[in-house]
Amino acid sequence: MSSLISRKENYSKWYNEIVIKSELAENSGIRGCMIIKPYGFAIWEKMQSVLDKMLKQTGHENAYFPTLIPKSYLSKETNHMEGFAKECAVVTHCRLKNTPDGKEIMLDPKSRLEEELIVRPTSETIIWDSYRRWIQSYRDLPILLNQWANVVRWEMRTRLFLRTSEFLWQEGHTAHASREEAIEEAKKMLRVYTNFSENFMAVPVIQGTKSETERFSGAEETYCIEAMMQDGKALQIGTSHFLGQNFSKAFDVKFSKQFGGKEYVWATSCGVSTRLIGALIMTHSDDYGLVLPPKLAPIQVIIIPIYRNHEQLRIIEKSVTIIKKYLENHGIRTKYDYQNHKTPGWKFNEYEMKGVPLRISMGIREIEKNQVELFRRDTMEKQLCSQNEFLRLAPKLLEDIQNKLYNRALKKRNALMFHVNNYEDFKKILDNKGGFISAYWDGTIETEKKIKEETKATIRCIPLNSDTKKGYCVYSGKPSSKKVFFARSY
Amino acid sequence: MSSLISRKENYSKWYNEIVIKSELAENSGIRGCMIIKPYGFAIWEKMQSVLDKMLKQTGHENAYFPTLIPKSYLSKETNHMEGFAKECAVVTHCRLKNTPDGKEIMLDPKSRLEEELIVRPTSETIIWDSYRRWIQSYRDLPILLNQWANVVRWEMRTRLFLRTSEFLWQEGHTAHASREEAIEEAKKMLRVYTNFSENFMAVPVIQGTKSETERFSGAEETYCIEAMMQDGKALQIGTSHFLGQNFSKAFDVKFSKQFGGKEYVWATSCGVSTRLIGALIMTHSDDYGLVLPPKLAPIQVIIIPIYRNHEQLRIIEKSVTIIKKYLENHGIRTKYDYQNHKTPGWKFNEYEMKGVPLRISMGIREIEKNQVELFRRDTMEKQLCSQNEFLRLAPKLLEDIQNKLYNRALKKRNALMFHVNNYEDFKKILDNKGGFISAYWDGTIETEKKIKEETKATIRCIPLNSDTKKGYCVYSGKPSSKKVFFARSY
Repeated sequence: MSSLISRKENYSKWYNEIVIKSELAENSGIRGCMIIKPYGFAIWEKMQSVLDKMLKQTGHENAYFPTLIPKSYLSKETNHMEGFAKECAVVTHCRLKNTPDGKEIMLDPKSRLEEELIVRPTSETIIWDSYRRWIQSYRDLPILLNQWANVVRWEMRTRLFLRTSEFLWQEGHTAHASREEAIEEAKKMLRVYTNFSENFMAVPVIQGTKSETERFSGAEETYCIEAMMQDGKALQIGTSHFLGQNFSKAFDVKFSKQFGGKEYVWATSCGVSTRLIGALIMTHSDDYGLVLPPKLAPIQVIIIPIYRNHEQLRIIEKSVTIIKKYLENHGIRTKYDYQNHKTPGWKFNEYEMKGVPLRISMGIREIEKNQVELFRRDTMEKQLCSQNEFLRLAPKLLEDIQNKLYNRALKKRNALMFHVNNYEDFKKILDNKGGFISAYWDGTIETEKKIKEETKATIRCIPLNSDTKKGYCVYSGKPSSKKVFFARSY
Repeated sequence: MSSLISRKENYSKWYNEIVIKSELAENSGIRGCMIIKPYGFAIWEKMQSVLDKMLKQTGHENAYFPTLIPKSYLSKETNHMEGFAKECAVVTHCRLKNTPDGKEIMLDPKSRLEEELIVRPTSETIIWDSYRRWIQSYRDLPILLNQWANVVRWEMRTRLFLRTSEFLWQEGHTAHASREEAIEEAKKMLRVYTNFSENFMAVPVIQGTKSETERFSGAEETYCIEAMMQDGKALQIGTSHFLGQNFSKAFDVKFSKQFGGKEYVWATSCGVSTRLIGALIMTHSDDYGLVLPPKLAPIQVIIIPIYRNHEQLRIIEKSVTIIKKYLENHGIRTKYDYQNHKTPGWKFNEYEMKGVPLRISMGIREIEKNQVELFRRDTMEKQLCSQNEFLRLAPKLLEDIQNKLYNRALKKRNALMFHVNNYEDFKKILDNKGGFISAYWDGTIETEKKIKEETKATIRCIPLNSDTKKGYCVYSGKPSSKKVFFARSY
């Protein structure tokens, strides 16, 4: 386990090294598709379990829809089609056969499908095709379904967790009897994601809506939460979409209203993905490796014995057994690393790299004094303390780390928020610091496009509850009441 | 909610009707791919949560590998390739574009992939391609990974849950330093599946190994558990495979041995799928609908109020609140159906169809006497009992139902087990009753094939721990020491 390149030296390389060295994931032999290794997947499982409960509390039920979608479904909603057609994995055949020499394998041309299927990039189309069968009356509404699934989007430039050709996610798809109810659902999911991001990932976010350009293909409004990474680039954490009647019209889904008449159903969708793990890494980690918030850490306390011989180990293990059992009984995820072909120093590095919030280690001297050496990953501070004190303190320490990580991230994020009134400052700050740049925008696609071309910054969001003061567009100088956040982004 | 066709009248139709009417799943617009509806998915989630714990207890960690696999990977292990090549969904392109008239969507011929990818039918190949990078030394072994995933096998004849072009499953993939350890792992997983099947699904099984013909493509030995459905057909519940060194040789995965030298790694894989839900349905259900074992029932107790007016409902709901809270505090999954546009009769049918183990209902008369009407789905028995007595009894009743369902299934299964000594009896029993037919087999592929052609029965398994007496092959009359189970199967 060698050390990392520093963030300062090469942020992008630092990120890749962390993912590899902490054994979260690696690239596979398939372009842009990653392998999520057990430690990375354990983080995803923690995320899933929290989010799944939250989704169920808002009334969502889980279901599962086919991964293969006929291409004709995709073409029913024009914007949706235009957004996804360019990055679809397309299934055209259903059989392989041996090459004439019998040594290799090739497509069996006789197995051409009547209609091509795409591997789902998202499931609005297949789900609304089903909702047509399921919805007749206002009594059938609302429907709130969620699916945990893999999706494929053939991205040209990929990065582990942040942008991969295949990723894992949850996608919520809801159907409602009124526009208002659907909009409220989309906003509610944004609150759920905000809660998850801030209180579990310890990642502060800005809530807002997307500009038309950045909107989900097929949505009338995209709500989003945006976070700021340590290098000054923004990262979209999650989105929820008010889809209006776009999909119900495309798939002809009407309901009989309570007091007569028929109407097209109102829709939303929402999702967060394994990209969250990228956000987690880039928000908290440092030049020593991962730093994980305790609530999502697969291992919260690592125990490492220090010994010269088997007799010492036997004595140490007596204490370890008691400590481990106590912690586990108190719901703390604890691991005892007893590998004897690795040195304590190797293990110290290993779990620092893996971002385990608390480490305790003990040699025969500590055991004799009923002590442990306690190490906090967030502050890198070491101290000796009595075993009893440690056991008493452990839950509070984990809580404290969780809070401190959030506050530290908030402070860093706030230090990367700027308001500018002119385009020179805009460009200067963007080049020197990055960050969220709050500025007035004239609301036109042209201005947005020009700014993107000239600076690579995009409108990350139009914040919810922004002030209503008026100003002048940072680019065109036209009067404007839209103060938005620009940033370069992942 | 209309009633079902009876099992006697048309078992196959009965099965399909149950799946649809209890809202477990339905067919989609994609050939052979099903939509798992919330109630069906809730059963799968229960299964997952139990199995996931069991797998973790045996040391498995979860991970995730790409769903798209280069076709060249598949061709590396010859038997594996031959088993799966004929049913692969093949991705050939990565983009769609508008047709010239702009109205439809078509394949973009310029987006042809250099190498075709298949949607995973199983993940041995992609996983062993990774194990090559992960395994160098005996210290890296064993590796025990599990993946929860969707897989696609382009089956020609599909049936909801039992055989679908896409299904959900868990697949375990392990790597070991010795043949013995790998074989023990495969056997251990068979015990895990047996435990799950018998103690959670309440489905009795026979443990055995497959004949060469029925073996997993690429395995040296396939261990399996087989259950008997009510119509006399067998269903394979789960399999675990000793893969020998087939995949390590195909993917060149060697390890340095503890005491010098290099050796190819030993492998196993194992899996159970959403097919388990088919087994659950066909083992326990009756002409009134599903019957679910309490341990896997998404709803264990349904509460239905019977009232004429709002005032009565208000009084009833006071008791409901107390009862529901009490049950939930005792870990019992409880639902109160308060829909007021459905009659109690409709609801009774609905939850009988859905196989909810216990129902309580109460009108104003019962409330006045502190009573409830209690209904057991397994026996269809009704009785009045005091609310307190019900609360006291509920956990025991659920346990009792779980046990009774197992015993009932075992009795039915045992009534469908026959030993025969000659081919006439073999055919007669098969045609009249079906079931497991225990008979001597001469061990040749020819005999197996002839019997299959003539009777549609296959060797379901060579039972573990069968007696060692010798006899004569039921078909060829040759001396044999292999007593195996034949059956027609799903």
